[in-house]
Amino acid sequence: MAASMFRVFDPRQLAHAPAQEFHNGGWAPHADLPARAANIADRLAPFEPARDLGRTPILRVHTPEYVDFLEHAHADWRAAGRPGDAIGYAWPVVGRRPLNLDRIDARLGRFSYDACTPVTPGTWEASYWAAQTALTALQPVLDGRERTSFALCRPPGHHAGADYLGGYCYLNNAAIAARAARDAGHARVAVLDVDYHHGNGTQDIFLDDGSVFFASIHADPASDYPFFWGHADERGVGEGEGANLNLPLPRGTTFEAYVAALDTALEAVARFDPSLLVVSFGADTFEGDPISHFRIATGDYPRLAERIAALGRPTLIVMEGGYAVDALADNVEGFLSGF
Amino acid sequence: MAASMFRVFDPRQLAHAPAQEFHNGGWAPHADLPARAANIADRLAPFEPARDLGRTPILRVHTPEYVDFLEHAHADWRAAGRPGDAIGYAWPVVGRRPLNLDRIDARLGRFSYDACTPVTPGTWEASYWAAQTALTALQPVLDGRERTSFALCRPPGHHAGADYLGGYCYLNNAAIAARAARDAGHARVAVLDVDYHHGNGTQDIFLDDGSVFFASIHADPASDYPFFWGHADERGVGEGEGANLNLPLPRGTTFEAYVAALDTALEAVARFDPSLLVVSFGADTFEGDPISHFRIATGDYPRLAERIAALGRPTLIVMEGGYAVDALADNVEGFLSGF
Repeated sequence: MAASMFRVFDPRQLAHAPAQEFHNGGWAPHADLPARAANIADRLAPFEPARDLGRTPILRVHTPEYVDFLEHAHADWRAAGRPGDAIGYAWPVVGRRPLNLDRIDARLGRFSYDACTPVTPGTWEASYWAAQTALTALQPVLDGRERTSFALCRPPGHHAGADYLGGYCYLNNAAIAARAARDAGHARVAVLDVDYHHGNGTQDIFLDDGSVFFASIHADPASDYPFFWGHADERGVGEGEGANLNLPLPRGTTFEAYVAALDTALEAVARFDPSLLVVSFGADTFEGDPISHFRIATGDYPRLAERIAALGRPTLIVMEGGYAVDALADNVEGFLSGF
Repeated sequence: MAASMFRVFDPRQLAHAPAQEFHNGGWAPHADLPARAANIADRLAPFEPARDLGRTPILRVHTPEYVDFLEHAHADWRAAGRPGDAIGYAWPVVGRRPLNLDRIDARLGRFSYDACTPVTPGTWEASYWAAQTALTALQPVLDGRERTSFALCRPPGHHAGADYLGGYCYLNNAAIAARAARDAGHARVAVLDVDYHHGNGTQDIFLDDGSVFFASIHADPASDYPFFWGHADERGVGEGEGANLNLPLPRGTTFEAYVAALDTALEAVARFDPSLLVVSFGADTFEGDPISHFRIATGDYPRLAERIAALGRPTLIVMEGGYAVDALADNVEGFLSGF
């Protein structure tokens, strides 16, 4: 990779180590292994450590009730006499609203939407430092000292909403950075999500916000997680109307078809004309990813990145998914080399 | 029990035999054992068989999309190569809406709200005949041939909404009967829910319907399932405003405290002045229930029932929960004896 790219990693992110997830009707080993981030960190060393920029920027995206829940959920789980990782079993699909709920199972349902995102003893620490990693990586881009910066975040963030966890995500690192850029004076910020899965949390956070454009290229939610978000007709609401662009693609999508969608997204971003770009980068578009179904090869990632770099905007790259642990460092290194 | 009470049971309801449920962070043996209904049927024999009154009354409560999903969900699950019972893992807690979803996991999430209500090979058959059991038991009350009638339904129904399953429930037997009574000319129908758990499905179905009064006495949802429904401030919407009464009670509630709440509910029902009453009867208020926490004794059930009978309305009693399998026949027999 370009030795010059500013990059941030904090090993406290490895404290999150979920044992298993409930998926397709049963338990499976959890796909978000700490080795995902550790392998990339080893390959691309050295990294800058994350600075502690505090809770304020987190609370600009997530509700205080949710942050309080997340910080204490595993202790509450233990206090209820439960072993292992905390996970919900019932969800407020109708009439979801703020409620004072005593039982940890109820609060897990209130603040989540799936059964594959356990809260472990180390989840809060890891999530907090993932958010700080994104914020630390953002600073030199805000200062103008760097054109491009890489935040090696884990757990990922783009499925987490203002008050919900899900999809292996707890705090929305990309959204926290985008909001921080807005707060630092960037009037128009774009988030480009090139993870295999739709970034439903980021979409929800900015759905009514016309100052942050969200564009996502992802597997069709009719067949792929997160199912209930990411459809092409979701185009923003209120002041955010038109500032949300979903480009769902079928399983089996090749590099060529992917690039066509990417170019559509990039044209829309260029029209929006942001002064700063956040890229939610998932390497799970890789043909060898164990839970995904696109056909992007390792050698394609530099070419994808070059197209994004051609936008010519100050850019923060935030790591999202990617579960082919042995190929991950190659794919990430290739992507970063395109900038 | 009164040998004269009209009662209906159909053994096809036993076809539903879920193996386990996902609950409090892990699998547990499923509490809705076929023996629940079989034991009651043995004790109170003979029963009238259910007549097949068709799908039309079911579709007066449930959406065609949901009914189609429920009928085919387990076959779709098998077609996807999945073993065992079908269960979801992700739920649309935000922006729930009709969507065309290919994947069975997505449809399970679309049409449910928890992970403890599996769709088994026999779920459709059992649910269909539970609905027919309620409808068959309703007929002589509609005709004026009987003042009181008992539908031994299983699976239970009161957690099922117009387009969702949950809480061991698939078709809302009580709501289907209440709507059928409306359609048969009863201008005002009341549903009194005395299961331990809030009848969220029934509430949702009639939330904006001022012609069906719903009153429920149940464990406080801050501590007990279904958590997100059943709070005292849920009083109906639109034309249903004021026609929904929730009386949550704390764990440990005794007969005396329960009766006070019951009398409040009965006064409200009397003010509403229905020409027909549907009682959603759960025996899980019993002190020995394995998943519930009230302190009603077997000897209390006749006295509870007498208070309800004192309303003097033509009444259909629909079986809901109750999981102390060995005590269930005693408790149901006691309750029915109060009429």
